[in-house]
Amino acid sequence: MAIRARLAVVVSRPLVSTTQFSRPAVLRVPVQARWQSTTTVDQHKGAAKTKATSSKVIKLTSETYPELKRDPKYAQVTEEHINFFWRLLGSESALIDGVTKDATDDIEPFNADWMRKYRGHTKLVLKPSSTEEVSKVLKYCNDNMLAVVPQGGNTGLVGGSVPVFDEVVINMSRMNQIRSFDDVSGTLVADAGCILEVTDNFLKEKNYIFPLDLGAKGSCHIGGNVATNAGGLRLLRYGSLHGNVLGIEAVLPDGTIVDDLSTLRKNNTGYDLKQLFVGGEGTIGIITGVSILCPRRSNAVNVAFLGLESFEKVQEAFKEAKGQLSEILSAFELMDSYSQDVVYQVTKNNRPLESEHPFYCLIETSGSNSDHDNEKLEKFLEHVMDKNIVSDGVVAQDATQVKSLWGWREGIPESLGYWGGVYKYDVSIPISELYGLVEETREKIAGAGLIGGSDEHPVVSVVGYGHMGDSNLHLNVAMRRYDKRVEALLEPFVYEWISKRNGSISAEHGLGLAKKKYIGYSRSDTMIRLMKQLKDLYDPNGIMNPYKYI
Amino acid sequence: MAIRARLAVVVSRPLVSTTQFSRPAVLRVPVQARWQSTTTVDQHKGAAKTKATSSKVIKLTSETYPELKRDPKYAQVTEEHINFFWRLLGSESALIDGVTKDATDDIEPFNADWMRKYRGHTKLVLKPSSTEEVSKVLKYCNDNMLAVVPQGGNTGLVGGSVPVFDEVVINMSRMNQIRSFDDVSGTLVADAGCILEVTDNFLKEKNYIFPLDLGAKGSCHIGGNVATNAGGLRLLRYGSLHGNVLGIEAVLPDGTIVDDLSTLRKNNTGYDLKQLFVGGEGTIGIITGVSILCPRRSNAVNVAFLGLESFEKVQEAFKEAKGQLSEILSAFELMDSYSQDVVYQVTKNNRPLESEHPFYCLIETSGSNSDHDNEKLEKFLEHVMDKNIVSDGVVAQDATQVKSLWGWREGIPESLGYWGGVYKYDVSIPISELYGLVEETREKIAGAGLIGGSDEHPVVSVVGYGHMGDSNLHLNVAMRRYDKRVEALLEPFVYEWISKRNGSISAEHGLGLAKKKYIGYSRSDTMIRLMKQLKDLYDPNGIMNPYKYI
Repeated sequence: MAIRARLAVVVSRPLVSTTQFSRPAVLRVPVQARWQSTTTVDQHKGAAKTKATSSKVIKLTSETYPELKRDPKYAQVTEEHINFFWRLLGSESALIDGVTKDATDDIEPFNADWMRKYRGHTKLVLKPSSTEEVSKVLKYCNDNMLAVVPQGGNTGLVGGSVPVFDEVVINMSRMNQIRSFDDVSGTLVADAGCILEVTDNFLKEKNYIFPLDLGAKGSCHIGGNVATNAGGLRLLRYGSLHGNVLGIEAVLPDGTIVDDLSTLRKNNTGYDLKQLFVGGEGTIGIITGVSILCPRRSNAVNVAFLGLESFEKVQEAFKEAKGQLSEILSAFELMDSYSQDVVYQVTKNNRPLESEHPFYCLIETSGSNSDHDNEKLEKFLEHVMDKNIVSDGVVAQDATQVKSLWGWREGIPESLGYWGGVYKYDVSIPISELYGLVEETREKIAGAGLIGGSDEHPVVSVVGYGHMGDSNLHLNVAMRRYDKRVEALLEPFVYEWISKRNGSISAEHGLGLAKKKYIGYSRSDTMIRLMKQLKDLYDPNGIMNPYKYI
Repeated sequence: MAIRARLAVVVSRPLVSTTQFSRPAVLRVPVQARWQSTTTVDQHKGAAKTKATSSKVIKLTSETYPELKRDPKYAQVTEEHINFFWRLLGSESALIDGVTKDATDDIEPFNADWMRKYRGHTKLVLKPSSTEEVSKVLKYCNDNMLAVVPQGGNTGLVGGSVPVFDEVVINMSRMNQIRSFDDVSGTLVADAGCILEVTDNFLKEKNYIFPLDLGAKGSCHIGGNVATNAGGLRLLRYGSLHGNVLGIEAVLPDGTIVDDLSTLRKNNTGYDLKQLFVGGEGTIGIITGVSILCPRRSNAVNVAFLGLESFEKVQEAFKEAKGQLSEILSAFELMDSYSQDVVYQVTKNNRPLESEHPFYCLIETSGSNSDHDNEKLEKFLEHVMDKNIVSDGVVAQDATQVKSLWGWREGIPESLGYWGGVYKYDVSIPISELYGLVEETREKIAGAGLIGGSDEHPVVSVVGYGHMGDSNLHLNVAMRRYDKRVEALLEPFVYEWISKRNGSISAEHGLGLAKKKYIGYSRSDTMIRLMKQLKDLYDPNGIMNPYKYI
């Protein structure tokens, strides 16, 4: 409804001519957006620091979810356990925090997630620095029924990497060495605890890139990326980690080291069981090393920012982009007007386009020849303007402008958190119906009188954005304060809506604690039974990341 | 050694100038190569018909491998079993061959592989036409301890798709319907028994392609492709099936239908257990349906055929191609001079290049813009000629010439079979050492006086070719007749050589019967133990494709 009304306003203006796209195009984005002083690297952490939430103490997960009970089968950490870990890991290079010294502050970052939604109360954080140490730690925990939580950069969105109760945190940050890189094949072998951005910078020097990019790259670990099967911004072009991960080294709860760190692109000798660790969210073992196929870095990167009048036109533009930009298309991101209004309200940056539109798309191309890519992009833009698929658009002229345009997409999550909290849904829906969920959700909340510009309304805005190229929608509800009435409207409505369309209730973010109980909306009873069978096979004592996943 | 001697001859000639590459280049390949009258579709079957082998009766596998004993735990097929299958599948549309009528001829193609190396003696071939029928068949077999062999197009190279003894063949050819195709996302859902080429032709009409191509495409099933994790010619560009397969429908031995036929590109809700069926070679269940992400068909395809003086130069050319052709590079195939000599001897076609060289490469580009691709390819070729990386080359001018140039690569397996038989190794080795295996193998056989031009020598030629882009080498030994002395020289030498370099003894072809006992050369004891654990989990009675895999 809202969309249609806006559309009428927009189409009454004359459409901007295609000449806008010919170089040099006028870029209307300021070179350095103000709010971007919080760098992309710390995007997640930055969001956690916004005024409305940072002052509050994070509620313990066990208080937020009183129905969750600590399983008495797990042992409590004793002095004897601690002595074992001290002997094994050492007092200096392998820390045991919060136990031998009164270090509650030190241990807090390992207990709480960056969204400030989940908080456990572990007293023990182990930081092994080798695969052998991980093996000894896990075997000991398994033998002694100590529940554990594998932890990478702790940037997840579903509470998967922090304890629910007093589970022992096994933090991988000390396993952070790049083991090898072959610059003919592009194969990288690295410790699980390598930070994504550090790894990508290493590859940059070799003229390669990591086949994954995401907002939390400055903090997240590549082991965590693999364990959660992270998708991110490069999936459209380079595919999923199931295809790019060539080998994995992991440790099972009984201490078995799964030595499957192949660097070969092809190896058809038996079951590809490493795939179970990709997206296994640390529930059957801990990934300690990864071998991954990296693509060559593109010489030429172009970004265009477009305004469109309907979701049907967005779909048309996407089809045209796939056809015409084909092998150089590296991103096709969707942003509705509501998401852009929020970014504008928070950042006060000049908008990329003079006119306003119900939908915006960010298109990125990456290729080996700048002239060819420019020509393809210009031809594509002329075509979609001529056909009235796209109403307006700009093209970035240099790397700074590329970054600024990306800011209007990447800045959405942070801006949404400005007022207080955000209900986040990361879902996959067949592309033709993708945006319907946002419209229906907005209508429901508006119908209940819960959305508005003043403080009496708990909801600031209902926005939709995401990776159009992967049918991956982020439905986010920006809140002044969390509100049970809104929650009752959202759930199970959102999950039922997705389930009816055979979508996924978690496209990228995984299950963790947040989605554990909703898996039935995306998986059949048979699939869930088979998954539990695998969990029991590898982790018969259930010590790995309990209370989560399935 | 041999290579060096030949090199001396070649480099004494003046190198051909780069102007050869400017369009229109002279194509020296005849438009219709003679031997290509056996179409690619029937390449495998064609090979099986060459004079030297077709007249012989194929030896029973149980005679070739007397150490293999039928496991008495499996039941023999009885009248009661047959009556059950008749009732279930019907007498017309679901055939039970060789039992109710004296149809030994009819059943023979299901018992023997196309290479004429392996032959079982089943009396029962079931052709279910729905997932429910497969479920009922498998459950009955499991309950009655009847061993089974899932069979697709029966084009494998390791004896995986035919019985060893009297296992019941479950042939998937009747499940051959395309279920759905979404032309925005490019997602295809199809029965496992769809023939690859038929499926690709369906996609062609939609301007898409199947992300896999291989010589046996006219016969092989897409279910079999997935079950064997087939690699083929498009892997360099589109990646492996582990990345492209979005969903699988499969039946476990107990009749459970694994309903994981997702069409979503992203779905992070639990273990990705479908991956165990990709490359599982029918040992834990039967794939009945596949959902797969298909790329857009490229408007422009270019092919160049190059001559090079050393394997070092081949590696340099590959690095340059990855850098300069980058996103449009779709194949980089290696062929040594010995392989090309064999094709020439058999086909008598005019060679693509006037001069002879120790190595040849076929480079294919696929892109959306013909002018851009031509320009990139020409620039690349000028560069590698200027730098003396490549000595000579031609570029195809039209689709017919593309096919003819490909014939010099795709025709190798068939030509090698001309004299009698071929010892085939499909291996993966770190790229810098890739060709060393061929040289050392040739020296060993030459040193033993077993190779030569006359009938007293069992070996015709030792050749190396393959997918350079994937570090995937085909080491083939063309034989006048199979010879135990040659076998003793080849094994375990070849496997030990690969194992020392952390290579794979089966890059694409899988384990089947042929490689089962050699898995230890590519996988650790731990990995083999974990694989056996999975096998036991899903197939506790061991009825699925016994005597093979692990």
